[in-house]
Amino acid sequence: MKLATLPDGTPDGRLHLVSRDLTRCAPAEAAPTLQAALEDWEALAPALASEYAALNAGGGTPFDAAAALAPLPRAWQWLDGSAFDSHGALMQKVFKLPPVDTGGKPLMYQGVSNQFLAPCADVPLPSEADGIDFEGEFGILTDAVPMGVTALKARGYIRLLVQINDWSLRRLAPLEMKTGFGWVQAKPASSMAPVAVTPDELGECWHDARIDLPLIVDWNGARFGAANGDAMSAGFDDLIAHAAYSRALVAGTVIGSGTVSNENYREVGSSCIAERRGIEMEDLGEAKTPFMAFGDRVRMEARLPDGTPLFGAIDQKVVQG
Amino acid sequence: MKLATLPDGTPDGRLHLVSRDLTRCAPAEAAPTLQAALEDWEALAPALASEYAALNAGGGTPFDAAAALAPLPRAWQWLDGSAFDSHGALMQKVFKLPPVDTGGKPLMYQGVSNQFLAPCADVPLPSEADGIDFEGEFGILTDAVPMGVTALKARGYIRLLVQINDWSLRRLAPLEMKTGFGWVQAKPASSMAPVAVTPDELGECWHDARIDLPLIVDWNGARFGAANGDAMSAGFDDLIAHAAYSRALVAGTVIGSGTVSNENYREVGSSCIAERRGIEMEDLGEAKTPFMAFGDRVRMEARLPDGTPLFGAIDQKVVQG
Repeated sequence: MKLATLPDGTPDGRLHLVSRDLTRCAPAEAAPTLQAALEDWEALAPALASEYAALNAGGGTPFDAAAALAPLPRAWQWLDGSAFDSHGALMQKVFKLPPVDTGGKPLMYQGVSNQFLAPCADVPLPSEADGIDFEGEFGILTDAVPMGVTALKARGYIRLLVQINDWSLRRLAPLEMKTGFGWVQAKPASSMAPVAVTPDELGECWHDARIDLPLIVDWNGARFGAANGDAMSAGFDDLIAHAAYSRALVAGTVIGSGTVSNENYREVGSSCIAERRGIEMEDLGEAKTPFMAFGDRVRMEARLPDGTPLFGAIDQKVVQG
Repeated sequence: MKLATLPDGTPDGRLHLVSRDLTRCAPAEAAPTLQAALEDWEALAPALASEYAALNAGGGTPFDAAAALAPLPRAWQWLDGSAFDSHGALMQKVFKLPPVDTGGKPLMYQGVSNQFLAPCADVPLPSEADGIDFEGEFGILTDAVPMGVTALKARGYIRLLVQINDWSLRRLAPLEMKTGFGWVQAKPASSMAPVAVTPDELGECWHDARIDLPLIVDWNGARFGAANGDAMSAGFDDLIAHAAYSRALVAGTVIGSGTVSNENYREVGSSCIAERRGIEMEDLGEAKTPFMAFGDRVRMEARLPDGTPLFGAIDQKVVQG
């Protein structure tokens, strides 16, 4: 099943089914919004699946992905992991960060959830001097999850898969990390690709609670990265269990993978500028690639091996806020 | 104006006006929920004020504070400061934390906002071994705040004052701080006292965007602390400006002061166990006071100097989750 949210003047927008090839859409009859669908998923999913099957058979109206909102334009909770160890290890090395023994626990921070930017909306930010960077990620939307859930049981609460750009202000981040309090100023609102999909849409490319697909990242039209999502050291099931240790998760909680990164980043490229700068620091002794300038664009998309589109594309321009 | 939310089977509950002496209440006619009131405050506040005046003149039904929900049972954003420097300085000293130069910026973390526990509800937590602690705080509820607001202008967006218990799991906190990502497991859902009040209810005890009142904290019936809220090194106006540097704040954003603490904590006591343990480490060489056990209760309340109640009391028991 593929779902998108189109603007209707309300904060949560209007839920739509989208055809498998992302060319057509129809308003969902079973639920007005994605949040409403997630709050009663087991009861509503069969009806939504029927609507989806009917849409794939024909009908609907053209789907304008560029006009879509984020599938969840606002969420009650956004927790972002950092589950690609090749990224963390490089950052630790080039910035000479002290090693952190997490006791086997995943890394995770809580971010601003009351707004997920539309996939093609301009992104207003305060200053180029802050080191504007993108972070291409995969993510999940959960059902309501009880406190203390195990990773094994957590898989059953993964309802939808999404694609995220976790905007980051790199020159503000180190200070906020040093406080131990995590990021506030360094992590503005994130963006979400237009379509949320059920795991079955990925076939064998969804396994071990990981998305086994490359995330294609282009910066100002030039290929920047194509790292694969299967390299997560903690799967989304582990991330749910970590998050739910001392809290129940509300339906519609968004959990991110962290910036997609592979050990062979010199071949496949990166999903954020900070990683490329880290590689340059290792190889050239200094970072050469600048962070983003106002007017720059970033595009992110993942497709199935046969070319079938999934989440649609994030394609955004940063502007002076 | 004094406002409370009573349960009605919906997640946001039903907004009520509460009489100045907290003895009587009446359902608000101008807005169904506090979130709705905050989203259209300038238009709705006059009508709510009229209803409040009428209630104070007589009528209504008895207000059962113990049955109330949090004034905002869920919020789109919860950002908690740490604005009492005497607390931070002691923690830094006894735990031999490296000094952090924040460049004059306040300390702040983003916490779980989709649930604020009711003021007298049991608090389910996973394990006594995690070091269960309370943190008595003051807080504010904001109107919608534009990105980049100055501290001076920020004062105009403070709509309501609240009282908060920021539950903390102390044995999990240091590891999460070391990662630099901030707290997830160490910060379960917080609690809110039953009544939210407009700043004018405090008279001269609201000044410089600070609450100049002692927060009375009792643990299992024994006085534990009575520190005053006026000692914030950053006022709530500064905390708003910090939070809004790279994001707009949604109406109903909750911002906390951090655990209330005064330099003479040996005389006035503390608003969290960690601080008392820090004092013991200084004075006795080791912490003697244990963290909370299941079945323990904590009560927190602030009143005007003449005894007029404000927020009502948080009075909760921790239980095995």
